Amino acid sequence: MPPAHPFDFDAVDGDKLKEECGIFGVVGVTDAANFVALGLHALQHRGQEAGGIVSHDPETGFNSARRFGYVRDNFTKQSLMETLPGPLAIGHVRYSTAGSKGQTAIRDVQPFFGEFSMGGAAIAHNGNITNADALRRELIERGSIFQSSSDSECIIHLMARSLQRNIPERMEDALRRVEGAFSVVAMTRTKLIGVRDPLGVRPLVLGKIGDGWALSSETCALDIIGAEFVREIEPGEMVVITAEKGVESVRPFRPQQPRFCIFEHVYFSRPDSIIGGRSVYETRRQIGVELAREAPVDADLVCPVPDSGTPAAIGFAHESGIPYGMGIIRNQYMGRTFIEPTEQIRNMGVRLKLNVNRALIQGKRVILVDDSVVRGTTSRKIKEMILDAGAAEVHFRIASPPTAWPCFYGVDTPQREKLLAATMSEEEMRSHLGVDSLKFISLDGLYRAVGEAKGRDSKCPQYCDACFSGEYPVEPADMIQKGFQMKAAE
Amino acid sequence: MPPAHPFDFDAVDGDKLKEECGIFGVVGVTDAANFVALGLHALQHRGQEAGGIVSHDPETGFNSARRFGYVRDNFTKQSLMETLPGPLAIGHVRYSTAGSKGQTAIRDVQPFFGEFSMGGAAIAHNGNITNADALRRELIERGSIFQSSSDSECIIHLMARSLQRNIPERMEDALRRVEGAFSVVAMTRTKLIGVRDPLGVRPLVLGKIGDGWALSSETCALDIIGAEFVREIEPGEMVVITAEKGVESVRPFRPQQPRFCIFEHVYFSRPDSIIGGRSVYETRRQIGVELAREAPVDADLVCPVPDSGTPAAIGFAHESGIPYGMGIIRNQYMGRTFIEPTEQIRNMGVRLKLNVNRALIQGKRVILVDDSVVRGTTSRKIKEMILDAGAAEVHFRIASPPTAWPCFYGVDTPQREKLLAATMSEEEMRSHLGVDSLKFISLDGLYRAVGEAKGRDSKCPQYCDACFSGEYPVEPADMIQKGFQMKAAE
Amino acid sequence: MPPAHPFDFDAVDGDKLKEECGIFGVVGVTDAANFVALGLHALQHRGQEAGGIVSHDPETGFNSARRFGYVRDNFTKQSLMETLPGPLAIGHVRYSTAGSKGQTAIRDVQPFFGEFSMGGAAIAHNGNITNADALRRELIERGSIFQSSSDSECIIHLMARSLQRNIPERMEDALRRVEGAFSVVAMTRTKLIGVRDPLGVRPLVLGKIGDGWALSSETCALDIIGAEFVREIEPGEMVVITAEKGVESVRPFRPQQPRFCIFEHVYFSRPDSIIGGRSVYETRRQIGVELAREAPVDADLVCPVPDSGTPAAIGFAHESGIPYGMGIIRNQYMGRTFIEPTEQIRNMGVRLKLNVNRALIQGKRVILVDDSVVRGTTSRKIKEMILDAGAAEVHFRIASPPTAWPCFYGVDTPQREKLLAATMSEEEMRSHLGVDSLKFISLDGLYRAVGEAKGRDSKCPQYCDACFSGEYPVEPADMIQKGFQMKAAE
Amino acid sequence: MPPAHPFDFDAVDGDKLKEECGIFGVVGVTDAANFVALGLHALQHRGQEAGGIVSHDPETGFNSARRFGYVRDNFTKQSLMETLPGPLAIGHVRYSTAGSKGQTAIRDVQPFFGEFSMGGAAIAHNGNITNADALRRELIERGSIFQSSSDSECIIHLMARSLQRNIPERMEDALRRVEGAFSVVAMTRTKLIGVRDPLGVRPLVLGKIGDGWALSSETCALDIIGAEFVREIEPGEMVVITAEKGVESVRPFRPQQPRFCIFEHVYFSRPDSIIGGRSVYETRRQIGVELAREAPVDADLVCPVPDSGTPAAIGFAHESGIPYGMGIIRNQYMGRTFIEPTEQIRNMGVRLKLNVNRALIQGKRVILVDDSVVRGTTSRKIKEMILDAGAAEVHFRIASPPTAWPCFYGVDTPQREKLLAATMSEEEMRSHLGVDSLKFISLDGLYRAVGEAKGRDSKCPQYCDACFSGEYPVEPADMIQKGFQMKAAE
Repeated sequence: MPPAHPFDFDAVDGDKLKEECGIFGVVGVTDAANFVALGLHALQHRGQEAGGIVSHDPETGFNSARRFGYVRDNFTKQSLMETLPGPLAIGHVRYSTAGSKGQTAIRDVQPFFGEFSMGGAAIAHNGNITNADALRRELIERGSIFQSSSDSECIIHLMARSLQRNIPERMEDALRRVEGAFSVVAMTRTKLIGVRDPLGVRPLVLGKIGDGWALSSETCALDIIGAEFVREIEPGEMVVITAEKGVESVRPFRPQQPRFCIFEHVYFSRPDSIIGGRSVYETRRQIGVELAREAPVDADLVCPVPDSGTPAAIGFAHESGIPYGMGIIRNQYMGRTFIEPTEQIRNMGVRLKLNVNRALIQGKRVILVDDSVVRGTTSRKIKEMILDAGAAEVHFRIASPPTAWPCFYGVDTPQREKLLAATMSEEEMRSHLGVDSLKFISLDGLYRAVGEAKGRDSKCPQYCDACFSGEYPVEPADMIQKGFQMKAAE
Repeated sequence: MPPAHPFDFDAVDGDKLKEECGIFGVVGVTDAANFVALGLHALQHRGQEAGGIVSHDPETGFNSARRFGYVRDNFTKQSLMETLPGPLAIGHVRYSTAGSKGQTAIRDVQPFFGEFSMGGAAIAHNGNITNADALRRELIERGSIFQSSSDSECIIHLMARSLQRNIPERMEDALRRVEGAFSVVAMTRTKLIGVRDPLGVRPLVLGKIGDGWALSSETCALDIIGAEFVREIEPGEMVVITAEKGVESVRPFRPQQPRFCIFEHVYFSRPDSIIGGRSVYETRRQIGVELAREAPVDADLVCPVPDSGTPAAIGFAHESGIPYGMGIIRNQYMGRTFIEPTEQIRNMGVRLKLNVNRALIQGKRVILVDDSVVRGTTSRKIKEMILDAGAAEVHFRIASPPTAWPCFYGVDTPQREKLLAATMSEEEMRSHLGVDSLKFISLDGLYRAVGEAKGRDSKCPQYCDACFSGEYPVEPADMIQKGFQMKAAE
Repeated sequence: MPPAHPFDFDAVDGDKLKEECGIFGVVGVTDAANFVALGLHALQHRGQEAGGIVSHDPETGFNSARRFGYVRDNFTKQSLMETLPGPLAIGHVRYSTAGSKGQTAIRDVQPFFGEFSMGGAAIAHNGNITNADALRRELIERGSIFQSSSDSECIIHLMARSLQRNIPERMEDALRRVEGAFSVVAMTRTKLIGVRDPLGVRPLVLGKIGDGWALSSETCALDIIGAEFVREIEPGEMVVITAEKGVESVRPFRPQQPRFCIFEHVYFSRPDSIIGGRSVYETRRQIGVELAREAPVDADLVCPVPDSGTPAAIGFAHESGIPYGMGIIRNQYMGRTFIEPTEQIRNMGVRLKLNVNRALIQGKRVILVDDSVVRGTTSRKIKEMILDAGAAEVHFRIASPPTAWPCFYGVDTPQREKLLAATMSEEEMRSHLGVDSLKFISLDGLYRAVGEAKGRDSKCPQYCDACFSGEYPVEPADMIQKGFQMKAAE
Repeated sequence: MPPAHPFDFDAVDGDKLKEECGIFGVVGVTDAANFVALGLHALQHRGQEAGGIVSHDPETGFNSARRFGYVRDNFTKQSLMETLPGPLAIGHVRYSTAGSKGQTAIRDVQPFFGEFSMGGAAIAHNGNITNADALRRELIERGSIFQSSSDSECIIHLMARSLQRNIPERMEDALRRVEGAFSVVAMTRTKLIGVRDPLGVRPLVLGKIGDGWALSSETCALDIIGAEFVREIEPGEMVVITAEKGVESVRPFRPQQPRFCIFEHVYFSRPDSIIGGRSVYETRRQIGVELAREAPVDADLVCPVPDSGTPAAIGFAHESGIPYGMGIIRNQYMGRTFIEPTEQIRNMGVRLKLNVNRALIQGKRVILVDDSVVRGTTSRKIKEMILDAGAAEVHFRIASPPTAWPCFYGVDTPQREKLLAATMSEEEMRSHLGVDSLKFISLDGLYRAVGEAKGRDSKCPQYCDACFSGEYPVEPADMIQKGFQMKAAE
């Protein structure tokens, strides 16, 4: 789904897939909500549209705040944070929901909260439930009243109807009915709970902070609060954490071969995070190295498309021996959206954010390294800017394979027909973009860069790479119902 | 003067000198204010606190809007821009004013406007008037009423009292009474006016857009509106521009040897700007090259302090052959200020914005390249983060000489005693920062990097480098009156 | 429950009972939400804290907006009203909810909405459900998730769980489970629905506007939209209205002797409304006449406590022949609340809103006519102001009997022990207030003023007068559970 | 000048003349600005558009705040008032300025402030300077820069250019150059200053509060702060007040026969104020008595047009013996303006604020008492509402003579041709309004009601009644320059 406004910050970054959520929780610290706010700030790249925090305090019970906009603009204020007391809190940042018509309403902003007979619970969900439509119909039929258009709300209603006597077991009940990808952080009055789906599509890590514990989408958010990274929550694992008893682990699901999202390595996660024991920065640099080996080209300058192409460009430059330089300068003062913008602004597009370093580019054969090509719109504009500035040649090197299939596991992708690689061959794309050469890293090359020395195991792939391969590890039931055509079996 | 709040965005960037203003004007285009807004957006790095635009339209006369905050948050809105019609407009972004007690009031935000008997005029000023206090006393004695605490307001009052019959000549009269550094963009009902002081301390460039003309602090702002860079306004030159007659040039001042601010090359200007015929990016990269020659060190990684240290780090890595890498990751979602922040936030400091790429740093001997050291506060924090992450050695390489003297020409510097280099030798600074080595580029090395092959001409320096040398090309009269001690003659 | 802030507008009016809600709905007109906004503006005296509107449009479905503050500040804006299209809409204004801890959250603001398998429905409720706590526990036990702390939300959950196949019948099911006082306006995609409880405690009237229909708490809101008053909805009646078929009436409840709230005549309703075929203004004037007969006193001036005492004062003056005059002047510019007020403001109290007309009062024996005495706080302050201004005597005449019992049917009353008349005799109250005489109208006198020539039928009272008599027509089950002591049987 | 928006609160009240300002100052109390805020709140009826306060504190010097909107919404907040410390403060509320094109800018909001060589001064002005245009041209010619479009700013520039050595004497100098009507409250670092023009057109009173002193447009604002009314400042008097020396009085102007504005008695002042030793309420009641004698009519009901017609209606009813009743009910929740209102709202007009009490009016012969008729627009609408409600006859009785001339002394009046009485005879007006009878009080009757037993002295009128008589006590020089035609000498 394209962003609401054609020339907001996202439009400039618009040729990207969008992670939909970041989640964070902490227990056993003073003023837990402050830590959650910091954690969400560090996870802001996973969702910029809105954020929410729920905390629990023995005296005032559950409290919550949900706001549109950046964490730093809302959840740093003393006056707001004072309304979120207590030693236990969870939070969520989001981009947008599958299913919401038009813009997100504040009621779609997580965490979701439910009052059960044994007490309240709040949940924050990263991922996407692929059978949410069917579950929703069933729940409404039985008398549940939905307050949001979010697929994630099903979980809390399933919990409300569970016959189990305690909340963690109700959550197990609920999640066993749910299909798709989910990393969940939840809380009761005393417990912090974390779960990953059996495939482990979305990340979730555990940290230790003083006598307390933290759960986070990524390790970079542990760093900001000064927590120590303990380990990843494993695919199919559920942890129930209290300040007193520490971490208890259960396995509510039938075991499966994990399929972690490989695009987290390519683009979603922050370069300073550690995933699956690997530095994301180093992986991306290595993708650049692989790319330089797979698709070398004689040129004068390796130039990243800022900022996501930078590590791969550094790797490409290092491997190829071609000088690295900042051919494109990013305006640090771009914000996210323009409310009621002038016609002028609407026509500016990428120039509002990027400017070519003309003196560096002029007369040079330039290799532009970008992380991915989705619709190709931004790539075309950047190519034009580079040529206008007098580049002799423009070569695109892309740090991921062609993105030819939509993601149904918690990532915002255009409809399949909008994906450039769904309708064009590599040569057609090169011609469409109007560049001298265009090369994507191979799927095997990507697997090598993430540490799989032998490349992709095509029988039993080590990652979810559906966006490249069309091989979906969980059938997207709701989408098939709506007419989505799976890749024909070969 | 330290920023108002100790942990806002500026505090994180706090160990920097701050350019106080960016100015922009355009004539001969439809809806000139829209172009000015874009230009100011591209000049936002020169002043983030507030901005203002004045436009003139034959039907509605002069209109103005002044706002706190970023250009993109204010001057992109249709509803505001519609109040600024007409083919002629000027604008200003500012950081803060010498003289305002506490925070800037909206009345201190430029452009300033005055109604004279022959019509109105608006002016926007980049620089600082070193005899403003004396002028102000004299003007008040004669019955002028000041509306702001800005030194720049003197200019408009001097114009109001001039006996000349037209506004450009009144401006000449006024500027001949003024001492210090000034680049001015002004407008009457029909004319766009640009002036630089005889030393040419602050930049000002001329561009052509369609049938119209633009004046800008930097060329990067010409790029954003699609204007062609024509030439710099020369030191001591005044241009009077109309859509009909084009550019007329006069020389109101006694000629002097130009002394352009060398720190514009080091830090203030955007890397994609061209100054004095030189690419700022290339100059900075060259500083890194010089630095690698002057102060080599055996190490494993060259790492920029983002983002201002990046070009010099690239140059240093290239010259030294040591690999370049992103050891410090910047959070893209940092804003400028935290209103009523929590205690937690107040104690976070630099960690809110920067995180160490631990996997890259660990065990390595790291060269950190930064543009300057002012008070040394941020440098210390960054060093601690790097060491906490397991670096084996930390070597600072600074892309400017020691900053030992305050600037009185339009840059916000701490009082002299707060400048680390004013009270410590290089070795004392190294020890204070707690790093394995600390080296600044030499003054001659810096001059070589900006293209002066023979280095600095100590008899007649080619640039204003008072912040390094203590040699002030214009006597800071007001400051001396307030007790500032000039460097003793040698 | 006392107002949140001790010196807001309500504090000045603080010695009043507060109606908790006004409801309004319309079907069969273009842009129904605009009519609802006007209707709610006319009903603003019934609830000033917040308001909400839900509309339905065949193209965009259900839309809603809920806002804190006055109707005129929110629901008059083009930009908001454009989001509420369609020929069918309902709305609600509210004061506060029994049950919400601290301040009302936006999620407590009605109308409430539920999506059922046969489509959505929205409801707006005026009154109070006396068994809401028990219902809520039962619904949660079965898996319903409540989103608000409002008793009214029970209705929509009961509807969600009904086995009936259409929404009006589900509403019948739901309301048969509910005890207490309720006037309800509801809507489906095509139907406007109105219901009154069997006792008809709260008002609800039907109006005709063009080809459409309106439901309103009071007739004054029909006047503002230019609708013709048709009739009252009868106690125990449910009307289902469509633009096509007009009004269909059903009787879902077992018939009972109606008990309309007599305090609506005394204070809640607007003087220009017609209730039970009687003008509220005329009733109040007649109360003044009765009071002058029951409790005459020799004096120089009849002075209303503005504004609610005015009609009774006019009646009192007319009957007694004593001149009528404005001895107390109201500041028209008082708003509702002071956010973070100064100490000074906090100590001002009633003087911020009322000032004595000293020249009129001085030396006079003054009869002050007020509608009611609740806690007596404002009455004391007014007495002091009058005496400070030099009145010779002060006589209070109150247009209602002593308020000795709380209301549990949708009116915000202090706890019983805070009611002056619950703990003091009339003479004790006189002495407490420090006035020369204090007289309340008798219960029989009040019944005569509302047209019951023979006064109150003590066997089978014609009205609900529980706040005066302690005789509650519906047992307040939740409150008894919480410890409320009913009046001992005599 | 009509209000900016055709259907705001003022439009509903739109057929009124508008006082343009209220002024207040206090010295010798702790936190003087708080007292000024309260005083301005009590004077809000004199100007609702904006307000400003300047205070002085020995430590922080002069501080000021200017805001659009009601005093109670701005100047009651702790956070704002803390920025206005000190024992001396003045303030101003305003409606709008002659001269400002379109809406008032914040820079037009008083008090105005000037820094002179001997220190700063702030002034607040109620009235209008009739030679302001000429003064402004002269001052600009000499180099003064005006910051506002307000006529009042001339005073501060004239002060800046005075050769006197202290501020009170500079103010004398300035005011001797000024023509027209002015009551001024001003302050230096230590002195509170009050001045009335020689004719004493606008009011100004002196009060005592503890050891301090207050100056106010009206006595009702002394009441709210608990100050004792001392006396009026006399026409042509200047008082200079310090906490230490108390009140010193000087007479800077040539004595003249005073001409206080008689419309202050009719409409502008609050009924609880005392002017010239007379109660405004009592004067208005007496106007009603005179009117009943001058223009009796056989009818069933005397009904005020709320709220300004109420005292005269009470007097009329008392004198005529016809019952008094509230035939028109005012909605207490009307605000001042509707931002971007819907079409629906735009067409509502007076019905948004007033509703007819149909049950009272029906079948009756109604006397409507209003304070004045300006353009007649509201009168027509009210007449229609009354007839629609079934009145048998409608008789207008107006508590002032026909308003046939604009005011140039600080009151906002329509251009002469918009005044109904400027173009129509009384009978033509009656026919235009479509009522059964229409009578205005005679000029002599009005003078009798204000206590001049022999009526108006046509040789030497005791009041300024230019709006009725066309006899202007000060020649409106600027307006004559702009083409205004004075009444021909008879």
